[in-house]
Parts: sequence; structure tokens; C-alpha cells
Amino acid sequence: MSNTVEKWGIFELTLSGPSEGNPFLDINLNARFRYKNKEVFVEGFYDGNGTYKVRFMPDSEGEWSFVTSSNCSRLNGIEGKFICIPPSKNNHGPVRVVNTYHFAYEDGTPYYPIGTTCYAWIHQGEDLERQTLETLKKSPFNKLRMCIFPKHYEFNKNEPVYYPFEGSIEKGWDFTRFNIAFFKHLEQRIKDLQELNIEADLILFHPYDRWGFSNMGQEADDRYLRYIIARLSAFRNVWWSLANEYDIMKSKTLLDWERFAQIIVENDPYQHLRSIHNCRNIYDFTKPWVTHCSIQRVDWYKTAENTDLWREMYKKPVVIDECAYEGNIHRGWGSITAEEMVRRFWEGYVRGGYVGHGETYIHPEDILWWSKGGKLYGKSPERIAFLRKIIEEGPPYGINPIKMDTDIPCGGIENKYYIFYLGFNQPVYRIFRMPSGIKFKVDIIDTWNMTTEEVPGIFEGTFRIDLPGRPYIAIRMKAIEG
Amino acid sequence: MSNTVEKWGIFELTLSGPSEGNPFLDINLNARFRYKNKEVFVEGFYDGNGTYKVRFMPDSEGEWSFVTSSNCSRLNGIEGKFICIPPSKNNHGPVRVVNTYHFAYEDGTPYYPIGTTCYAWIHQGEDLERQTLETLKKSPFNKLRMCIFPKHYEFNKNEPVYYPFEGSIEKGWDFTRFNIAFFKHLEQRIKDLQELNIEADLILFHPYDRWGFSNMGQEADDRYLRYIIARLSAFRNVWWSLANEYDIMKSKTLLDWERFAQIIVENDPYQHLRSIHNCRNIYDFTKPWVTHCSIQRVDWYKTAENTDLWREMYKKPVVIDECAYEGNIHRGWGSITAEEMVRRFWEGYVRGGYVGHGETYIHPEDILWWSKGGKLYGKSPERIAFLRKIIEEGPPYGINPIKMDTDIPCGGIENKYYIFYLGFNQPVYRIFRMPSGIKFKVDIIDTWNMTTEEVPGIFEGTFRIDLPGRPYIAIRMKAIEG
Repeated sequence: MSNTVEKWGIFELTLSGPSEGNPFLDINLNARFRYKNKEVFVEGFYDGNGTYKVRFMPDSEGEWSFVTSSNCSRLNGIEGKFICIPPSKNNHGPVRVVNTYHFAYEDGTPYYPIGTTCYAWIHQGEDLERQTLETLKKSPFNKLRMCIFPKHYEFNKNEPVYYPFEGSIEKGWDFTRFNIAFFKHLEQRIKDLQELNIEADLILFHPYDRWGFSNMGQEADDRYLRYIIARLSAFRNVWWSLANEYDIMKSKTLLDWERFAQIIVENDPYQHLRSIHNCRNIYDFTKPWVTHCSIQRVDWYKTAENTDLWREMYKKPVVIDECAYEGNIHRGWGSITAEEMVRRFWEGYVRGGYVGHGETYIHPEDILWWSKGGKLYGKSPERIAFLRKIIEEGPPYGINPIKMDTDIPCGGIENKYYIFYLGFNQPVYRIFRMPSGIKFKVDIIDTWNMTTEEVPGIFEGTFRIDLPGRPYIAIRMKAIEG
Repeated sequence: MSNTVEKWGIFELTLSGPSEGNPFLDINLNARFRYKNKEVFVEGFYDGNGTYKVRFMPDSEGEWSFVTSSNCSRLNGIEGKFICIPPSKNNHGPVRVVNTYHFAYEDGTPYYPIGTTCYAWIHQGEDLERQTLETLKKSPFNKLRMCIFPKHYEFNKNEPVYYPFEGSIEKGWDFTRFNIAFFKHLEQRIKDLQELNIEADLILFHPYDRWGFSNMGQEADDRYLRYIIARLSAFRNVWWSLANEYDIMKSKTLLDWERFAQIIVENDPYQHLRSIHNCRNIYDFTKPWVTHCSIQRVDWYKTAENTDLWREMYKKPVVIDECAYEGNIHRGWGSITAEEMVRRFWEGYVRGGYVGHGETYIHPEDILWWSKGGKLYGKSPERIAFLRKIIEEGPPYGINPIKMDTDIPCGGIENKYYIFYLGFNQPVYRIFRMPSGIKFKVDIIDTWNMTTEEVPGIFEGTFRIDLPGRPYIAIRMKAIEG
């Protein structure tokens, strides 16, 4: 029945109001939601054709009431109630930071970001967008970096199906009037991702633009942000990425980014995860509004190997959203091998962070996954799926780097769980010096060939483990309980 | 005839003198060599059994004269002459620094160091030492890092054939009496290398010791250095490496290393190349006595990629003598793949430096090349030979880094010669933006499969080159003359 809403689902109030003038500018609407002593203040939005909406994501089961307020009397003082019921099976709530460096859904279920990137996938039309969703469904990915605005860049010259504002290329854009069709479509895609248990890491601004959306001016930027928050923040799988490559957006200053962050902090009632992605210079992630690091590698060679350093610097989860892409285009960032991609994923994982994927293989119709979605052609996704399985078999809220050797990285939980990663090293054995008095079972993991083999026996103290003498091997040790 | 010596050959004066007492301490002997207005002062040494020698490497063709001086009247005031004749075919003189970052033999022939490491090869007995020389003969290497003292370390537990001092393990060593057999054998090995056109990069001190040679005290250290210089500096293929891993030799301070450097600067009449090799902390290579950087990688991931940075820091040739070793032992530094080794060689080369090789494959009798010599089993040496050919085909005194792209390194000589290296990138094409008005021939070099293929046509300005889409590709461009 319509006045029940599942926990972390969306309660949507639809109202009729004026359509004359410019409702986007003229009418304000908000609502106060109450649950026992708790009160949440939510902004509504104009949804075209005289329709106004208020969306709300309840986080407590039981009865909620609300009352609207508006400068338009038809929309003001409207009251109502609904019952928040338990969440359905795959609904674990929004993702939060836990244990300083890791993530979990709000219900406590661990969440390990295994991200990929399809910057402009929602601007490609129904057929390709469906194909992207099909591909994602079979993939290991549970987070998707995606731009709200269309993208202009090499391999990305097509016009989008929808534009975010009313107007046209010929006549120009009216930044005071949002294009409702654009936002309904965007919401559908966020819902589609939610059904696949994929977090939508929404990029709010980016520099790759020929339409003027990267340079609308402060007033239009801020209005756009408020509108986005009013429409989208009730979706539990939304993350806010202020920018892709903030540092090459010439029309924005650090003050702009900080103002945007404040607008989000003040207007998103649910405090979804927030970050900002760099090109050359990592943002100051010590800023209180930043929930996690969203890093583009700043060195061509040493990428995920810096994870533990960044953890120490920022004391926040480290997500390396761009470590370069598996592919074969003419750019250094878009032509690493699958081997190198998988190696970076593992380096990031054992150092207590999370690495993201992207793919840029040349395509006869320029359908490159990193931008348009479509199909995946590379060899890394199945290895990333294998890693995801290993991660999920590990300690519930992720692992932290443990200094065991100077020459290879190790992550885990002290005395309980250790995972060593050998990368491009190919030793035929290693000596391990484990904490004494603890018995371990040892597995040899071939991260490339995707095999896990238990070493017969139980190990304690200092011992030697024979290894296959190939690169890309990990060694996992689990303490035997009791 | 005996009173002719080829240029950069060795003139050796042998004298009879006292053998009673301790001639090493009691007798001093030196000689002044004269050529026209030039005078060179050289120390002699005691060679056992009442024999004294003065060795001298003339660097000018024509008549030289000499006169000895000694505190022993039998050795004092001895005069003589010899004729210095042109050098033989493979004798190009000692190696010198040219063009700040590169090397050449004294006669102007370019020298590109392609080094390898066999730390303790001279302590393995005739059979294995002969085998090492046979292997070197067929190898691309023209520089060998080797310790004077024997080595105690894992895979290195055997006693040496000769000890540098009189005495024994049981009775202890007399640091005031050198073991002549040891030094004659060492000299033979330096001569053997010279015949193979291999520079002997002699490591004077090192920490891997169970005999006490790393901790003899200041007086014995300095006497040992003087003796080494008197005996060996007339060999044109000698380089002085003050230490392997100076920074983990607990018994030596920075003052010791600086004093050793001064002793060498003051006593080596020929000013052979001088450096000092680190473990964790690179030595201050801005010191005037340092002729070139001899680096052990200070990061497990980014090694030769720092070459251009080190060039800028030190303004001297950068030789990365240890970038890790191809092999499969249990250490990170001793288990990189051949692919990674070759990649590091190329990264160093295109950035205007030189990378060194070593090999550490497990062996049933613990004969690992890096320490004992013997045979090479790896896949990198033939690729290094291929690189050596590429280097030798290039500009005569090496190349310097040229900033052409931000994402891949390039080295060359501006407007004349460019070599781009793609490393682990696998693009199917690249766009090149070359200086306008210059016509280029373009070769695609597969550094792993060792092929060079000319791209048909002549290229100018900005152009696209199709590539094989595999890793480890280099692109060479040569300007067409006239």
C-alpha cells in the first residue's frame, strides 16, 4: 500500500501547483519529516507540468509524519503520515565509512568498493545503456563513476539524448530551467544501478564540455547543485563526487569547490559519501567534508603502492578511482595491460585501500567502456571478480597494512589474518616470520590464474613456504581459532 | 722489447730489496715518471720474497724516464727510460666522464656501461672462475661489479681460495702483511676482464663479512687502500667503488668514507672513476670526488624511472648498479622477472642513464651469478644485448631525456634522434608531435622480442604511428640528414 515505505527506500510526495512563470525560481517547497524525537528537513523540487515533489529516505522503521512549507499557499502546510517497514533483502541502506579506512552499508553489512568508470554512459541512448546494465550485471563491480553532464572528449563526440537544461545548442541554454526528461532519465539509471546493488558515484562537475555546463557561473552552479540534491539524495546508492579532475577546470577555484561542499553538507539530509577527484594534484582530503579519498594516480609508475601512505596522510578510506585503464588507446592512462591493472588492484587491497577499474580498448564505433559503457573486452574484470571473492572471504570490514617484510606488502588483521602480495616478483619460496604461538593455515593464491591452493599442514612461528615461481602470487594465512 | 709499453698499458719496474722485518711497514718506495714537462708521482709496493715493484700507466706516446726514491738505499735513486708506443686495437684507455652524464674511453671511443654483478666471483676457485669468464665473453656486459674481500651471506658460505692478509681463520689475520698470492690472483682476474673489454668496478669495502675485513680499524683500512692503489691503479680498466652498501657498515662513519675518498684522490695518479653504492640511503653524490652515481634502487616499484631526477640532482652520470636482480630467490631484490629487468634497463636508458644487471636463480649448488658467477640462466641478458646494440647504433655519447609527452619517457638528441619507450603500455597507436621542419625515419622496436621494423615512409610534424598493441615497445626516430 502506498503509505508504507521500506527503510532506506523512497517516500515520494507529489503535489500540484502553479506552472506559470518560472517555478524553478519562483517557488520554494520543503518538508519536515518527524519520527519520534527525530526531525529531518528536506527540500522539494519542481518536476514540470505543475507537479511538485518531495522525496525522503526514512532510516527508522515505524510511523513518520511530515508537513510541507512553501511560499505558494497551494503547497504549504500539507501534512501526512506513512509507515516505514523493514528493508527488502538487498537493501542495506546507504554506504558509510567504518573503522576509519573502510566502508559498510548502514545496516552493518560490509561494503568493499570494487568500482569501474563509465563517464558518459547515461548519454548514449536506450540500447547501449541497456547493454551497459547487462554487462554490469555480470561484472564484479559494485560502484560506478558516472558524470551527470554529457562529456566532450576524444572518442566522445556524440550528442547526448537529453540535455540538463531547457534550450538547444542553436539557441543556447536556460540555466534557470531544468530539463525534467533529463533528470527522470538520470533517476531511472540510478534506480537501475540500485537494482544491481551498484553505488552511483555521481560526478557533479567535469571539464570535458562543449555545451557550457562546466562554466555556468556561480548562481547557476549552486542552483543546479540544490536541484540535484533535492531530486537525488533520497536514493540510497548515491555518492557525491564534486568533480572529475577539479584541478583542470579553469572556471572554478578552490573557493567554489569548498562552497559546493558546504551546499551538499547543508542540504543532503542523509550525508551521502562525498569526495572530489583530481587530475594532477590530489585535493586536500583532510577537509572535514571529505568522507573518503577519491584519487587519480599522480605518478605513472607508482600508483596503488602509495595506498598506505595516503591512508596515513588523510586518515580516511583510500579509493584509487583512476589507477589508469586497461586498454590500448594512444594515452598512457588508457593503455595498461590487464596484468598491470590486476597488479594495481592487489597492491591497493593489501595496503588497506580500494582500486577502481576502467577499460579503453579501441572500438570500431568508438564505444569505449570508460566513457560510453557497452561491453567489456579486457582480461582484468574476471580477475577482479576473483579478488572480490577473496576480499569477501576476508575479515568483515577490510584489512589494514601490516609491516611484516620490507620487500613485499602485507595486509590483514594482526594475529588473525594476513595476506602477502608478491606482484612482479617470482620467488620459488619465501620465509615468513609470523607472531609466535599462533597456528596458521596457509593458502597460495595465483591472482592471475585465479586459483587458491591450501598448503598442506599447519604453520607456526618462522617457516618456509614453497611457491610456484611465477609473478602475481599472493599468500593468505588464517589463524586457526581456539 | 721490454722497454716499450703501449699507451695505457702497464710499465712495471721490478727491484730487489730487503725481505727481513716487515717490508710492508718498513720500506717505502715510489717513483717519479717524466714525459716532456709532465711528471707523475707513483707509489710502489712490496710483492713478497724481497721483490719490490712500481707500476705505471703512461698516457702519452714517446719517451718516458723515471727515478725511484726510497728509505732503503738499494731501492733509491734508480733511473730508467722506456718508450710508450701506440695502443693496441682494443685498448682505448681508461673510462672517463663526458658530456656531464655519459662516458667515453680516454681515446674518445664511446663507452656505455652495461654492467652486471658477481660480487665474490674471484673467491670461487679456478674452474668456476674460468666458467664465469667464458659466460662473460658471450654476454653483453662490459662492466663487472666485484668485491675485493670475500663475501659472507646467504648462498655464500664457502671459504675463499685466497685471503687478503697473512694468517688464518684459526690464528687470526696480520693486517700489516698482505697475502701476495691473493693480490696476484686478483690482478690476473682484472687482466682477464681487460682482455674481454670489461671494466672492473672494484668494491673496496663491504659489510658481508665473517673474517673481520669489514672492521680492521682506521690504520689497517688506510694501509689496505694505499696498497690496492699502488698495485692496481695502473690497470686501465679499474673503477673504484668505495663500498657496497656503505650505509649498513656499522664500523664506518661518513668521515671514514670521505677519508677513503681523499686517499684515492691523492694516490691514484690516473683518477679512475670513483663512486660509492648505497643500501637504503643514496650517498651525497654532489661531493666533488664522486665521478658518477652508483645507485641501488631506494624504492621497490619506481627504480630506473627516477634516472632523470637523479641526473638533475647530481649533475653526474647515473648508473643504477642494482635495480634488483632477475631471479627467483626469496628476496624482493632477487626475484624480479626478466620482463621487469629489461623494462628497467630501457627506462634508465631513455632517461639518459645506465642500469645494471644481476641474476639470482636458485641453483642446486648455490652457484648464483650475482655472487659466485658461473652460468647465466635468465632471459634478460640477450635482451640487454639487443638494447646494447640499439644504444651503440645511437648518438655517440649517449642520449638525454627530452620532454615530449607527459605519459611516456623519451630520450635522444634534440632535432636529431628520439627514442620513446612504452614500458607496460600496449597502445595500438600513438600521436607524435615532432619539431616541425625535420623529416624523420621511424622504427618500431620490440624490446622483448628483439625486433626492429622500419615504418614505411618519411614523417614530419604531427603524425600517427600504428603500433603492435603489445607491451615493451620502443619507437625510434632518426632525422634524415641534409
